[in-house]
Amino acid sequence: MKNSLYIVIIGCGRLGSLLANQLSRVGHSVVVIDTDESTFDDLSPDFSGFRVVGEATRMAVLKEAKLKNADVLFAATHEDNVNLMVAQVARKVFNVQHVLARVFDPRREQVYDQLGIETICPTSVAAEMFLLAVASDRAARGDA
Amino acid sequence: MKNSLYIVIIGCGRLGSLLANQLSRVGHSVVVIDTDESTFDDLSPDFSGFRVVGEATRMAVLKEAKLKNADVLFAATHEDNVNLMVAQVARKVFNVQHVLARVFDPRREQVYDQLGIETICPTSVAAEMFLLAVASDRAARGDA
Repeated sequence: MKNSLYIVIIGCGRLGSLLANQLSRVGHSVVVIDTDESTFDDLSPDFSGFRVVGEATRMAVLKEAKLKNADVLFAATHEDNVNLMVAQVARKVFNVQHVLARVFDPRREQVYDQLGIETICPTSVAAEMFLLAVASDRAARGDA
Repeated sequence: MKNSLYIVIIGCGRLGSLLANQLSRVGHSVVVIDTDESTFDDLSPDFSGFRVVGEATRMAVLKEAKLKNADVLFAATHEDNVNLMVAQVARKVFNVQHVLARVFDPRREQVYDQLGIETICPTSVAAEMFLLAVASDRAARGDA
């Protein structure tokens, strides 16, 4: 890779820590923000990024993470509202080019879309995978 | 569709209710089990399946849902342990042919695999989608 990206990840839960570890491993500069310092225990020993403890909904915390330098922001906390708010601030105030947010409630995806925020909804994805499995089950029985 | 399937869904949260509504709509026979009756409010008015209130880890509840007649079981509660236990019981005791479980912790996927249970891990899927987005971002900048 020629250039590494500067990536800010909000939320160091299962998804956030998984992403932080993988992105750091391949050479990106990663900053992880979480309100709970103990979540950083899930970062691998070779994680070379920065950890910021604090509420990502507070400007001071986002500034500490140098959000204005970020190429990518991932909002991956467990709260859809927090993800939506931080994603919007990243877009509008810090002009981050690529903003992605996890959203658990599939009904909120449209709202995010209208605000220009890319979303990933694990609920919808899991549902599609389950439905595909049923379809293949039916096909295997020759009922399709 | 020639034949409809008999499908038992454990957990009527966002994923469970989404699946129940969609599968019922296309003509499958669906039974949803949840400990909390209020979760059934998320079932659509045209949901034509059955609702069972109770702990899916109790045999009596699974019998009430006629699990032995099921073609497919989806374990979609918010607790990995519950999903794993019910999925195993469905396979070993009720001989359900197709058993799928949601698992949030990616580290548990291997355990499920070894027990012959198909899993869907929303965390892993979301992580892959986020990573793909970063890769496409890098490609678009001509850095790839």
